[in-house]
Amino acid sequence: MRYLRVGLAQINCTVGDIEGNARKVLEYIQRAREQGVELVAFPELALTGYPPEDLLLKPQFVAENQRKLAELLPATAGLTAVVGFVDSDGDIYNAAAVLHHGELSGVYRKSYLPNYGVFDENRYFQVGSEAPVFLRDGMTLGVNICEDIWHPSGPTLLQAQAGAEVVVNINASPYYMGKRDFREKMLATRAVDQVMIVTYTNMVGGQDELVFDGASVIFNEKGELVARGKQFEEDLVVADLDVDSVFRYRLHDPRRRQEIRQAESRRDKVPRISLRPVPESRRVGTPLSLTKPALLEGAAEVYGALVMGTRDYVRKNGFRKVLIGLSGGIDSAMVAVIAVDALGPSQVVGVSMPSRYTSEASKVDAQALAQNLGMELITIPMEDIFKSYLSTLGPVFQGVAPDTTEENIQARIRGNLLMALSNKFGWLVLTTGNKSEMATGYATLYGDMAGGFAVVKDVPKTLVYELAEYRNQRDGKPVIPRSIIVKEPTAELKPNQRDVDNLPPYPVLDPILKAYVEEDKSLSQIVGMGFPEETVKRVITLVDKSEYKRRQAPPGLKITPRAFGRDRRLPITNRFLGAETRK
Amino acid sequence: MRYLRVGLAQINCTVGDIEGNARKVLEYIQRAREQGVELVAFPELALTGYPPEDLLLKPQFVAENQRKLAELLPATAGLTAVVGFVDSDGDIYNAAAVLHHGELSGVYRKSYLPNYGVFDENRYFQVGSEAPVFLRDGMTLGVNICEDIWHPSGPTLLQAQAGAEVVVNINASPYYMGKRDFREKMLATRAVDQVMIVTYTNMVGGQDELVFDGASVIFNEKGELVARGKQFEEDLVVADLDVDSVFRYRLHDPRRRQEIRQAESRRDKVPRISLRPVPESRRVGTPLSLTKPALLEGAAEVYGALVMGTRDYVRKNGFRKVLIGLSGGIDSAMVAVIAVDALGPSQVVGVSMPSRYTSEASKVDAQALAQNLGMELITIPMEDIFKSYLSTLGPVFQGVAPDTTEENIQARIRGNLLMALSNKFGWLVLTTGNKSEMATGYATLYGDMAGGFAVVKDVPKTLVYELAEYRNQRDGKPVIPRSIIVKEPTAELKPNQRDVDNLPPYPVLDPILKAYVEEDKSLSQIVGMGFPEETVKRVITLVDKSEYKRRQAPPGLKITPRAFGRDRRLPITNRFLGAETRK
Repeated sequence: MRYLRVGLAQINCTVGDIEGNARKVLEYIQRAREQGVELVAFPELALTGYPPEDLLLKPQFVAENQRKLAELLPATAGLTAVVGFVDSDGDIYNAAAVLHHGELSGVYRKSYLPNYGVFDENRYFQVGSEAPVFLRDGMTLGVNICEDIWHPSGPTLLQAQAGAEVVVNINASPYYMGKRDFREKMLATRAVDQVMIVTYTNMVGGQDELVFDGASVIFNEKGELVARGKQFEEDLVVADLDVDSVFRYRLHDPRRRQEIRQAESRRDKVPRISLRPVPESRRVGTPLSLTKPALLEGAAEVYGALVMGTRDYVRKNGFRKVLIGLSGGIDSAMVAVIAVDALGPSQVVGVSMPSRYTSEASKVDAQALAQNLGMELITIPMEDIFKSYLSTLGPVFQGVAPDTTEENIQARIRGNLLMALSNKFGWLVLTTGNKSEMATGYATLYGDMAGGFAVVKDVPKTLVYELAEYRNQRDGKPVIPRSIIVKEPTAELKPNQRDVDNLPPYPVLDPILKAYVEEDKSLSQIVGMGFPEETVKRVITLVDKSEYKRRQAPPGLKITPRAFGRDRRLPITNRFLGAETRK
Repeated sequence: MRYLRVGLAQINCTVGDIEGNARKVLEYIQRAREQGVELVAFPELALTGYPPEDLLLKPQFVAENQRKLAELLPATAGLTAVVGFVDSDGDIYNAAAVLHHGELSGVYRKSYLPNYGVFDENRYFQVGSEAPVFLRDGMTLGVNICEDIWHPSGPTLLQAQAGAEVVVNINASPYYMGKRDFREKMLATRAVDQVMIVTYTNMVGGQDELVFDGASVIFNEKGELVARGKQFEEDLVVADLDVDSVFRYRLHDPRRRQEIRQAESRRDKVPRISLRPVPESRRVGTPLSLTKPALLEGAAEVYGALVMGTRDYVRKNGFRKVLIGLSGGIDSAMVAVIAVDALGPSQVVGVSMPSRYTSEASKVDAQALAQNLGMELITIPMEDIFKSYLSTLGPVFQGVAPDTTEENIQARIRGNLLMALSNKFGWLVLTTGNKSEMATGYATLYGDMAGGFAVVKDVPKTLVYELAEYRNQRDGKPVIPRSIIVKEPTAELKPNQRDVDNLPPYPVLDPILKAYVEEDKSLSQIVGMGFPEETVKRVITLVDKSEYKRRQAPPGLKITPRAFGRDRRLPITNRFLGAETRK
């Protein structure tokens, strides 16, 4: 019986850390070897991290990645490793090196370069034009990269037509809610369509605004899930691929046989690279049992993404502790819980900065939360500072009524205090604004928006509540006080303030925002969904008018199909106002 | 004698203002008609403004631009208008409509889509595949768009081979220092190579970080400059093109005749669209004399770009007044002068916010500057507020020595005060940081970086001085007090502070920054330019470590080949440190 033992090494790479990423590749090659793996696959651009952005324009960066690739060769004695790197021949390519038994046997260059959403690959890479297959011990293997496999007529088809029984697809696929399920359906379809085994190795970890969720998978030629790696953790998925089954299945599939005959003429366009035989001492006689860890779905999945993304941003940027302004509200509570889960309670400091408008309940709730989490809480009353602003500005503001100016002054005092602690003690400030606020501009620039990382920036308010419920139920020990969850949302910047004085209720606001921001729906289309026209107009106007604030917002984790940031690029100077558009 | 009277309408469009842009196109068509123009050309994407960014993902945006194009048709009776718009057939294209005598005679779709630097055209547009020529009164005209003409083997060549005697190239070409000269050399070469007349119509105006400089040009088939439009102003350049001269010149050029013979077989791949004859009543018998306004070069050119870019950002975003923190230093002085030149002295308000560290000289200089410019100056002492921060933070900071924390608190108090005035009175805050500061992070996030628009963000400190000298000499009436220019640069945030305590002298710093930031040179290459290794390492480290600050900086005008912002996209999480790179 022919089978191939593969290892899918879903490692957590760091952009720019070529040395560290290579070290990790070596470590996983060694672990794979110990488990008798014959072919181990690493993520897309594993050596450079993904996305390297304009580092790719530095020749010294590309050269260093090539040097490191060459240094990996000796470690591949006895096996095959597929490693993502930047190939260069004057132009540069997003490429996969096939390192086999100490030699560089071949290179695949990505054919389909994504240049939408968060992706800018056309900015850097040239398109690869060849789709080679690799022959090993009578088995035919195709190698390609991420976006390639999303195209039904792409290199996967060419490689299948050239006889590939297994395709080794390597990825750095940014997470958003619902993507894993969609992706797995596509991979299963691709496996069935081409009658081949699909191995999908994904990056894991956080990189600025992006989270890579891991969850590497293998689908067999019948579209059945053979194995899945962990989500949001490094993993080495080892499985034995029954290549004979592909062969048998193809022979008995008349549709497939016809395709093969049609493909005969194309076969010679696909380079065929033979890998030299290696000693088989490590081959194991019986197939491994399958690995499928429990699947995180829904709120649990989003929560996992936020925890890992936060941990990685903090750690990869060299911070030990983080600082969070705790208002007693749900958003800052949620961010504190995520931070504690990501970093441990001793690495998270809360600050309560009560003003004349802060209710007793808010103070108590912040304290209860900190106590539940076992984190430190510093209290810095801001009243004296607020008074000094009011008296200093008194002469200039004479005769003008109080308005949001005075509210923003308070938020900016808090921003200044948080940053003072950050500067003094080297703690990273986590901001607490959610997507509903970022969308509508219901946040103060340089105030509550001040900080290094915006944990729930892409989480709509209604989902913040879902996450709170999930986390409180997760291990039977609620951490967020019930009173925080049930209280009416308020900024507490003037007497008796409530969010609903400025915004529609969140269950109305959030679907309108999704339609406008994530789906580019027009005013009339959103009204057609059943929302009052005046409400929709107001929301759209708020979104359009807040672009300048978002441009200066800290980065935060993408968890929806379209996040603010690199994912949605709108001009600030813009007279195309969605609320005025006829159609 | 055959000649064609053309009009190059370099208009100032606003992104998203499809209605207003179309109105302007109509106005210039009318002006062109009054001057007997037969063919009037408008900039690239004139109807939508450039760059529309993700507005292009909204179907209602594209549809509105198409509706407006159709509405222009009746206005083109008796002449030809080439108008940039977004064409759509399911996919979208960056296109030029040829509107002729009330009909849409043809559409050219851009073939070369820039996707580097500030450009993201692959994110939106599909590539055009045809390069038609238009036949009018026995003359053959090619139409193409911006980037197309930079490619020697692009549509310009195809159109020339198909007999085009004139190419109508329309543009939205972002300004940077030195680009106009480079561009004109290229256009002259293209005209000579293809033995054709090149008309180059450019956008003018500011759009967020970009400035379009106008300076539309016409080169004849000998590579001679026939006409040039104004820089940084709207203009209608009218010229008579001697098409017979092209014909004669081609006949006498053996190289050209050989190329034509070789091209015969390709000729049928170029669609040939005949424009129907129009009444010739407006033709004038003798060619117009040539127009070439005086050319702004060097510091004068940069200054023109900054003034127009600032005016357009302020006005297009609906602001009347701007607010500038005046420290008594050169950067804020420069920004104030630019703002007054852009908006008039009554629209510019200065704020002096002296602290315990502000010297008497700084206060006097700020006052003298405001007086010279005829602008209002408000004084708000910040000492009381500073004291309230120090006493509030006293318990938390007990036992820890003062450091940059206390400096940043002061900068952020000023940021809060500026924003309070902005919020209260609706004034836009202009920030005053230069490129040397932005590069090295020598600025306080949410402090002096707080504001809506960063006027000199892309101007290195040494160029700030050049601009000051230029402006003081320009009309024999210095506006920036000499004492501001000659004083030692200081942030005045602690006693006896000087910039050179933290940074190398600017004449050393700026060339290192240019090499690292704009040219991607490595440590060893920059050291090879003659700078001390320790200095270069220190500068590179400062640049690498400040990415998080720049990510939250306000937008500012691009005037160098590579600005911070969309032009340079680096990860924050990044372990590839230029100062540690061997090669």
